[in-house]
Amino acid sequence: MKKIKIGLIGAGRIGKLHGVNLAHSVAEADLYAIADPYMNDATRAWAKDLGITGIYDDPQQIFNDPEIEAVFICSSTNTHADFIIQAAQAGKHIFCEKPIDTNLDRIRQALSAVEAAGVKLQVGFVRRFDHNHKEVRDVVASGKLGAPNIVKVTSRDPDHQSMDYIKVSGGIFMDMTIHDFDMARYLAGSNAVEIMAYGAALSGAGYEKYDDVDTAIVTMKFENGALGVIDNSRAAHYGYDQRTEVMCEKGCVQVSNDLNNQAMISTGEGVSIAKPTWFFLERYNNAFIAEEKAFVEAIINNTETPVSGIDGLEPVKMAMAAALSLREGRPVRISEVENS
Amino acid sequence: MKKIKIGLIGAGRIGKLHGVNLAHSVAEADLYAIADPYMNDATRAWAKDLGITGIYDDPQQIFNDPEIEAVFICSSTNTHADFIIQAAQAGKHIFCEKPIDTNLDRIRQALSAVEAAGVKLQVGFVRRFDHNHKEVRDVVASGKLGAPNIVKVTSRDPDHQSMDYIKVSGGIFMDMTIHDFDMARYLAGSNAVEIMAYGAALSGAGYEKYDDVDTAIVTMKFENGALGVIDNSRAAHYGYDQRTEVMCEKGCVQVSNDLNNQAMISTGEGVSIAKPTWFFLERYNNAFIAEEKAFVEAIINNTETPVSGIDGLEPVKMAMAAALSLREGRPVRISEVENS
Amino acid sequence: MKKIKIGLIGAGRIGKLHGVNLAHSVAEADLYAIADPYMNDATRAWAKDLGITGIYDDPQQIFNDPEIEAVFICSSTNTHADFIIQAAQAGKHIFCEKPIDTNLDRIRQALSAVEAAGVKLQVGFVRRFDHNHKEVRDVVASGKLGAPNIVKVTSRDPDHQSMDYIKVSGGIFMDMTIHDFDMARYLAGSNAVEIMAYGAALSGAGYEKYDDVDTAIVTMKFENGALGVIDNSRAAHYGYDQRTEVMCEKGCVQVSNDLNNQAMISTGEGVSIAKPTWFFLERYNNAFIAEEKAFVEAIINNTETPVSGIDGLEPVKMAMAAALSLREGRPVRISEVENS
Amino acid sequence: MKKIKIGLIGAGRIGKLHGVNLAHSVAEADLYAIADPYMNDATRAWAKDLGITGIYDDPQQIFNDPEIEAVFICSSTNTHADFIIQAAQAGKHIFCEKPIDTNLDRIRQALSAVEAAGVKLQVGFVRRFDHNHKEVRDVVASGKLGAPNIVKVTSRDPDHQSMDYIKVSGGIFMDMTIHDFDMARYLAGSNAVEIMAYGAALSGAGYEKYDDVDTAIVTMKFENGALGVIDNSRAAHYGYDQRTEVMCEKGCVQVSNDLNNQAMISTGEGVSIAKPTWFFLERYNNAFIAEEKAFVEAIINNTETPVSGIDGLEPVKMAMAAALSLREGRPVRISEVENS
Repeated sequence: MKKIKIGLIGAGRIGKLHGVNLAHSVAEADLYAIADPYMNDATRAWAKDLGITGIYDDPQQIFNDPEIEAVFICSSTNTHADFIIQAAQAGKHIFCEKPIDTNLDRIRQALSAVEAAGVKLQVGFVRRFDHNHKEVRDVVASGKLGAPNIVKVTSRDPDHQSMDYIKVSGGIFMDMTIHDFDMARYLAGSNAVEIMAYGAALSGAGYEKYDDVDTAIVTMKFENGALGVIDNSRAAHYGYDQRTEVMCEKGCVQVSNDLNNQAMISTGEGVSIAKPTWFFLERYNNAFIAEEKAFVEAIINNTETPVSGIDGLEPVKMAMAAALSLREGRPVRISEVENS
Repeated sequence: MKKIKIGLIGAGRIGKLHGVNLAHSVAEADLYAIADPYMNDATRAWAKDLGITGIYDDPQQIFNDPEIEAVFICSSTNTHADFIIQAAQAGKHIFCEKPIDTNLDRIRQALSAVEAAGVKLQVGFVRRFDHNHKEVRDVVASGKLGAPNIVKVTSRDPDHQSMDYIKVSGGIFMDMTIHDFDMARYLAGSNAVEIMAYGAALSGAGYEKYDDVDTAIVTMKFENGALGVIDNSRAAHYGYDQRTEVMCEKGCVQVSNDLNNQAMISTGEGVSIAKPTWFFLERYNNAFIAEEKAFVEAIINNTETPVSGIDGLEPVKMAMAAALSLREGRPVRISEVENS
Repeated sequence: MKKIKIGLIGAGRIGKLHGVNLAHSVAEADLYAIADPYMNDATRAWAKDLGITGIYDDPQQIFNDPEIEAVFICSSTNTHADFIIQAAQAGKHIFCEKPIDTNLDRIRQALSAVEAAGVKLQVGFVRRFDHNHKEVRDVVASGKLGAPNIVKVTSRDPDHQSMDYIKVSGGIFMDMTIHDFDMARYLAGSNAVEIMAYGAALSGAGYEKYDDVDTAIVTMKFENGALGVIDNSRAAHYGYDQRTEVMCEKGCVQVSNDLNNQAMISTGEGVSIAKPTWFFLERYNNAFIAEEKAFVEAIINNTETPVSGIDGLEPVKMAMAAALSLREGRPVRISEVENS
Repeated sequence: MKKIKIGLIGAGRIGKLHGVNLAHSVAEADLYAIADPYMNDATRAWAKDLGITGIYDDPQQIFNDPEIEAVFICSSTNTHADFIIQAAQAGKHIFCEKPIDTNLDRIRQALSAVEAAGVKLQVGFVRRFDHNHKEVRDVVASGKLGAPNIVKVTSRDPDHQSMDYIKVSGGIFMDMTIHDFDMARYLAGSNAVEIMAYGAALSGAGYEKYDDVDTAIVTMKFENGALGVIDNSRAAHYGYDQRTEVMCEKGCVQVSNDLNNQAMISTGEGVSIAKPTWFFLERYNNAFIAEEKAFVEAIINNTETPVSGIDGLEPVKMAMAAALSLREGRPVRISEVENS
């Protein structure tokens, strides 16, 4: 079997997650090297245990290795664009975690480098590979329900991130809703043209101190005429709540959450069912493997990757428009933020 | 058993529905008289079969009858305010179908007359009595989930009304969403302060000809800080879709649709379950009986009615704000429409 | 509208239930007379309130009244056969509560009288009219799933009857499982040929004192080759549990319980849904109305009633076979009890 | 990390499944050697790709290797007992696929050898590790619902095995129901004392030619007083149907099937949901990994394995009793087959 030699850049939580999957669950991947400027003994041992040959501090060693065909960029967001450009110039195919950058020009520069080099790029919007959301998309895309009219995304985290994290997160829309902006575009099959955001700090955890919110409802219009709505919470203490729905001309497709099990317990006091799977590591576990496989297969078969550079760009515009809308209390057209 | 003698005004579809229920399903009601300016033989026969004694063309005969303690006003909307005033002056308790009027001043005049007369008034927001939505409200109102953060109402009709009806309907927000505005207030336990509406004519049925839409997403902020969203369609061909959800600080309560039955049919081709109950007559059948009982019991026990005059006023403001928002493409504060 | 004049015999719990429905919810029924040997002032007042003209102690007054076309026999089981015979001889159509009798010869005599008189007879197996079980039957009977292979009936009461009742109940199979034997035949579309019963007194309530059980699993073979199983409990404290399922050659149809509402409440502690509707008055409320309508319509349209005399006879044989099986610890063929 | 060196015996479908899991998904396992008398190039390549060092034709090479601490016996059933004895005598811990043998004496000899050697034995009843069935067991075992009264197991395969397989399968009870007998014991927390089996060849596939059935309902009594029922089909063309339920004194716990996704698609024609996961490889995928981890952890922590030798013995008795019951058309006590 042809295996793609892969270099992994960044060995934080998400980098390690991709590393384990590439080593164990993606048959056509050969996880060959890893680089992290903060490389330490624990990571070194973890990498050795996975059978990784090259263990480096400097990503350049990956870019310079002609054996390596593809890279996974899992470093901090502010390094993504640079690494994409370097990887492209080195002729490597690129999987990059989301977002590519929070600045549109930087994203465009990275996409230009990719295009110039003729390499493949896939952006890490993993939820597209979830069996539930994918089913919604597939049904809509099949056209059997007619054109989409209403797109709904419910996306709530089970608990707060630390306030240290929130402080530097870039705000709820760029940090959290970015996934939902991608999902809404993906389900609608169309770009947003206008966005209106309501938000509030309701949890008492102090988001208002950082000019941020913990609760939001964002509505939007799409080019194809569909309307969309996303609702978010940073602290849905009952669990990770990830539901999508598209009402089309002839019907509606909706998905509820995966649950921990299918049990129903009935007593005189009441009836209980299982809670949703805890958080994204549980809920999207198989989706991560599916996105990695899709990337490797796109290389092997020389086909388009399923999440393109444009897919990395548009949600960032949506997040910028939402932030501006919340700030100014008015709907914001995507065209207003195009040049920021 | 003490029975309340009731006069019914208006024998159209909704009037007849209340008539049958009062005659058969509300033990403490004595449906005693009916008046309709368009009284005809069929209605006369129908009324006799129900055992109604007084069958009139002129509502005055009901207002003038000292035996009658309460009236159900089920005539056309433009007559509601006048009939409320006359009934109040005659000392009758009043059940009035929604909306009281589409003009705020007319509503206020009617409410003043009710207050001056010291009679009871209940407005026909029947969905509050649905076992599902009521459960959501009861759980939120119990406080055990903490304060509400996000209120969601999905409300879609299974098929178009006639375009003749749409032409004079007053627009989707006053005609259809009015129920959902009431529901959102009821679930949030708070008044709206600002509303943003998106709408579109997507069905091809021609709503745009009457400056109306068939699809809408309306977002709102409540006085208590909660955010809300309503999504509407005039033509959800898969069925009458009526779901509500409130996410609170400590948890979430949501209700799905009643289905025609609990069957699941599994074959090699796929798995099917029953469709939602067809339309409001099926879905809210028991809710109508419950609202009628609640009104009669409020009279007998001399307690507050569960849907007050203010509950009749506020949703009209919300509908006006939503219409203005859609027209001007901006969020509208309730205070902007207060004096219209 | 043609209305059928009906005489009701027996004004106990089930008689009153039929009375209220016939008066209020079956448009083509005219509840005209009632007879109960234990007639008292409360029942008299109840009957007057329903608008019943003839209120008697003696059922003969109903049989003798030529105005009356049909009777509802809701008296105690030991009177059913006699009243059927008398009603038939008086030319009245007959609705009789289940079981017709616990003695096969007495049932056969009653059925002969019905046949000789050419009147209609419907036996009160109300569950056939439940929207859920009826859907299972309709799907199986449509043939689209092929022949039935496995028929499953779960039937559990939410709480014990009094031990005074149990003492004279005739045992679980004749008293409680009789409904399930009918359901199994109805769903299988075939008669049982052999039955094996396991039973146990597990609740601690003392059924063993009366040689009875509170828990049972009964298996059976049908003439058409299908296998069946019924499981029963007298005390499923979590609620009235009434589920059916038929696996056929090409698919499976199953129904779960109706719930009090469609709410789901999610918190950090867990997720709860509504309990099943409490007991048969709640669960089978609409089914009672449907069976009454079906009987009245069979008279008006001169068609077969949907639950025939044979349908009254066969479940009694099944109950007898089950009782013998439990007593002797062996499978019992229906033919063994045919002549008892 | 301490890793257990494992030798795998038998590289058929189930052996390969364990091999992949041990190599990739059980961190504390070191899959070190494999032996299969039918070793071929494809298997050799597969083993190399997994990083297995020792690739043999002869299981003796595994028993003789002092480095190896544990074996997985995945060869054909008739070799299980011999290999258990040899492995035990070599001091290896043993995971053995079900059933140990179809002869009680052979099983007892194998268990004696295990006991004499003081090694651990785990039998491959994988369904105990399914998240659904395990939840049922955990709830029952917690005691919070009181003693079990009714144990129900639905277990149906989505399609026929080949008739060549059926011919030598040992019959439905030993081949297929064996899993359900284990499940029933596990859920009841008690041994069966008597069994009654009904069975029929209804599919038209020809099971009757081999004196076998494709459809069965098996009832049983447990030592603790609970009653149980298993229903089986060899060809539930709608999918792999694996549901369990235990009704206890104070409540009921039941699990439905895992579905392919949580989607609901509603159109004017009807409402569809996803099918159950296709077959045991999909449904019990995670359960296989969990059983392997449990075995390895029992070795590392020197604790009891979760599925013991007795757990391997009792279901075989139940299968023998069921087969005798079906043959003779009568209930069979477990004690009748104890000495066969």
